[in-house]
Amino acid sequence: MSAAGEPGAHPLLCAATPAAWLEAARGARDILVIDHANCEKKAASTALALMFAYAEDLELADRMSRLAREELRHYEQVAKLARALGIVPRRLAPGRYACGLRRLVAHAEPAREIDLMIAGAFIEARSCERFEALAPVIGAPLGKLFAGLHKAEARHFKVYLDLARRAAARAGVSIEARIAQFARAEAALITEPDPVFRFHSGPPQACDAAARGSAHSS
Amino acid sequence: MSAAGEPGAHPLLCAATPAAWLEAARGARDILVIDHANCEKKAASTALALMFAYAEDLELADRMSRLAREELRHYEQVAKLARALGIVPRRLAPGRYACGLRRLVAHAEPAREIDLMIAGAFIEARSCERFEALAPVIGAPLGKLFAGLHKAEARHFKVYLDLARRAAARAGVSIEARIAQFARAEAALITEPDPVFRFHSGPPQACDAAARGSAHSS
Repeated sequence: MSAAGEPGAHPLLCAATPAAWLEAARGARDILVIDHANCEKKAASTALALMFAYAEDLELADRMSRLAREELRHYEQVAKLARALGIVPRRLAPGRYACGLRRLVAHAEPAREIDLMIAGAFIEARSCERFEALAPVIGAPLGKLFAGLHKAEARHFKVYLDLARRAAARAGVSIEARIAQFARAEAALITEPDPVFRFHSGPPQACDAAARGSAHSS
Repeated sequence: MSAAGEPGAHPLLCAATPAAWLEAARGARDILVIDHANCEKKAASTALALMFAYAEDLELADRMSRLAREELRHYEQVAKLARALGIVPRRLAPGRYACGLRRLVAHAEPAREIDLMIAGAFIEARSCERFEALAPVIGAPLGKLFAGLHKAEARHFKVYLDLARRAAARAGVSIEARIAQFARAEAALITEPDPVFRFHSGPPQACDAAARGSAHSS
């Protein structure tokens, strides 16, 4: 079980979702849901892009195709719930998270494929961890949806990690140090104050400033 | 039933697949299968791109998401069969078909959305018509797969056509003339000699030259 403030609860992640982010999520339900729907679409889109980028790799294509289908089914579920809750979709500027991870990805092969797969594993692992942390605190019916998605997403980070290890084995390199690098960068994106609230953002900057203020005065 | 040489058998199309193309397909099974797998991936990718382009339109997103999932399942089926048949995937330069249709698409909204949906309807309608024409002539197990896909794809062109009519109603325009324009252009791409063999190509240029040669001498 991964609880807020319990770092390392997810096998891949080295920081749990901060309690301040969960508190912010309770107060920003609409943005959470709209951005979550976007994340499901983007996850499907990323999987498809990898199918085109590594078109000769049939195992990768098969696993990415199944993953993309599952992400799209999740998108349909969250969009249906959003409609039931009267949440109107709108365009949101992207947060820093995906861009922050993408910045670590090598440009040249074979390192690029390994990095893309590691980045995918972290995004899926974080989604999984957030679903589990959100489920008990966000209230029904969102909590019920997130609890269901948590189980599905728990498989996805393993798909990416398997593909990363397979690509690394083919290239004859070890990926443990690279995974640790991504883990540190990912943890920073999740724990450092973030000016924007999103599904994968850090704790809100304002709350953090307030927390620092109160720590200062105590 | 749509048979080669029976123009207008499909409700949307104004030319049936030429017999010369079907003959070429029988002799180019590997390219047919590799390109068909590509087409399924591209169909999913196009549907996803439309979900991003018209992100506020929840009905469109829901229908495109379901369609993309179905295309991906078809991709998995054809990839599995390709593997069983020992067909090794390789990159193929794109044919002229999709590009030829895309050239008709308006750049400005609301015409662009209508055109994109009409183009999607024609691509799906042609796939459907080709599956039906190929099934009895390509031999098992491909014929069996194509017969199955034909039924699924028969729904897809209607999804696009519904969305085109809905976008047109919203814009207060009629689309019958526009559909007729696309139908003429699509028929030309399918019936005029094509230097490249692909799932959506025209009859092969060489065969056509031979046919013209024999017509000349008769």
